[in-house]
Amino acid sequence: MKIQAPYLLFLGDASDELSIKMAKGVADWRPELCIGEYTLEGCLVTTGQPSMNIAAAKAAGAKTFVLSFANSGGTIDPSWVPYIIEALENDMHVVSGLHQKLTDIPQVKALAEQRGLDLIDIRHPTQTFKTGNGQKRTGKRLITVGTDCSVGKMYSSLCLEKGMKARGVNVDFRASGQCGILIAGDGVAIDCVVADFIAGASELISPDNADDHWDIIEGQGSLSHPAFAGVSLGLLHGAQPDAIVICHALNRTSMRGIKNKPLPTIEQTIALNLAAAQVTNPNAKIAGVTVNTSSVDEQQAIDICRQIAQQVGYPCVDPVRHGVEPILENIL
Amino acid sequence: MKIQAPYLLFLGDASDELSIKMAKGVADWRPELCIGEYTLEGCLVTTGQPSMNIAAAKAAGAKTFVLSFANSGGTIDPSWVPYIIEALENDMHVVSGLHQKLTDIPQVKALAEQRGLDLIDIRHPTQTFKTGNGQKRTGKRLITVGTDCSVGKMYSSLCLEKGMKARGVNVDFRASGQCGILIAGDGVAIDCVVADFIAGASELISPDNADDHWDIIEGQGSLSHPAFAGVSLGLLHGAQPDAIVICHALNRTSMRGIKNKPLPTIEQTIALNLAAAQVTNPNAKIAGVTVNTSSVDEQQAIDICRQIAQQVGYPCVDPVRHGVEPILENIL
Repeated sequence: MKIQAPYLLFLGDASDELSIKMAKGVADWRPELCIGEYTLEGCLVTTGQPSMNIAAAKAAGAKTFVLSFANSGGTIDPSWVPYIIEALENDMHVVSGLHQKLTDIPQVKALAEQRGLDLIDIRHPTQTFKTGNGQKRTGKRLITVGTDCSVGKMYSSLCLEKGMKARGVNVDFRASGQCGILIAGDGVAIDCVVADFIAGASELISPDNADDHWDIIEGQGSLSHPAFAGVSLGLLHGAQPDAIVICHALNRTSMRGIKNKPLPTIEQTIALNLAAAQVTNPNAKIAGVTVNTSSVDEQQAIDICRQIAQQVGYPCVDPVRHGVEPILENIL
Repeated sequence: MKIQAPYLLFLGDASDELSIKMAKGVADWRPELCIGEYTLEGCLVTTGQPSMNIAAAKAAGAKTFVLSFANSGGTIDPSWVPYIIEALENDMHVVSGLHQKLTDIPQVKALAEQRGLDLIDIRHPTQTFKTGNGQKRTGKRLITVGTDCSVGKMYSSLCLEKGMKARGVNVDFRASGQCGILIAGDGVAIDCVVADFIAGASELISPDNADDHWDIIEGQGSLSHPAFAGVSLGLLHGAQPDAIVICHALNRTSMRGIKNKPLPTIEQTIALNLAAAQVTNPNAKIAGVTVNTSSVDEQQAIDICRQIAQQVGYPCVDPVRHGVEPILENIL
């Protein structure tokens, strides 16, 4: 199900940058999909999109109202329901990245059905998946994988897509998480599918394609993460990557959300992912390393990337600071 | 939710041995949990349990009516509903290992609610899981892992539990699949949980225990299986095994259900599982290898196990033919 653009980004009364990560992602990477943002009293953050109410957004052509913030617990606050209703009354589809389902709110469900509008709960895939078949698909695939969760796999993927596009490569970004799905307009929240179908859902994300076409597949989690490695492995197997980009963040003292669990080295992450990828694509290769260097200054960032490149023998960049040319050189 | 014994095993009109694998498993390993089997006209197979109808089973003390067969598609045939109703009317709880839910049949759901009886759809866990926390738990754990799916991980686990019990070890079999759950009376069908919670659900299966207590955890799938490795990895991480037993079946030409996919070697399976297990338990060790040798004669079985043991440097047995003493020697 393709999410219809343009979007009105609903931020509720969000008060910190992290909680509007989803809205920021789409505003940063696909401003052309956004028509504006709609905030309630108390909201302290902005995506930089013009502020407008539902009626104004409708008049400007908005097709979809997006609950594009996170809150603790992922519930839909009853105080937001009137705005969802107003969006439906203005003939907008509604998308939510929260845990609680739009379709579980009887009033919202009834109105959407009556008006023939879509309610898309990104975290609750409604497709029917098959188990993986492991059969090689046509076209080329790259996947981003991490030393840990939240190290910049989505941003690296989007930088790689942008770099390929600039070179005229036939390329698509393929989303596996809620934020990516809003950016791509479709995809599967892979950590939300039933375990039996992880690889099968991953196979669906990047179907057969032209021989010279590249899919840039957004990775999830980390093979070394005690909670989420199963998701990472199923996604990797289904992706059948020709190229793997290792993503890393500086200055972590423990794996995200896990007490006293040191991160694997980049070399360990390379070895683990290469061995696993070769189960479904014996020709899988490492294309390079990306590092989120936002915690250090420019010169340090350059030094660190140079040092990692020497150490592991692959190109290494901060994709946001330096672009991804050395990695693209290595692939194309 | 503990399944209440004794069970009446409902076989429907099953016509082949494979379709009553679940009923056979419990009849073979926990005959004391079974009161009998109930078959319909056309049924060509038996668990060896006495045949009886619902009223007779009730009179003999049956507490749970178990749909313990598989069919293509996993649907509940409308012709079986009257028997489910009859079981509920006789105050039996109902358990099903099929895909279609008992709770989706309004008549069945209403009657169960009215009579205060449980409907347990083993393939649809209703617990709320947390994501894994990776923190070390007390007690000892062993997990069985495979070169492929369906190589005898459950049977190996049960043989190991039986062998430990015979030695007076404080031990529990921990189930991760529907057949195992019926045998253990509880557990989690790990391939049916949402992907984000695989490791978290696995942590729940074998909670903190006494220092000298062993959990024998039934493994699932294979780290080398293109469709199911994500399940295997999450289960392995959550299990935090001290000991790993590699399970293998002879004469497979391709991974189960996958075209033209050779099996990994036992050595590769050892290396992959040991590396993955050490993410959550740095002291994880290989305890031995079990082989399903049912496709060869007794002398060949002995020769093959001896040869594998020499080749990999760990004890190797067919647990059903030879018992598991060499593996227990290695662990205890």
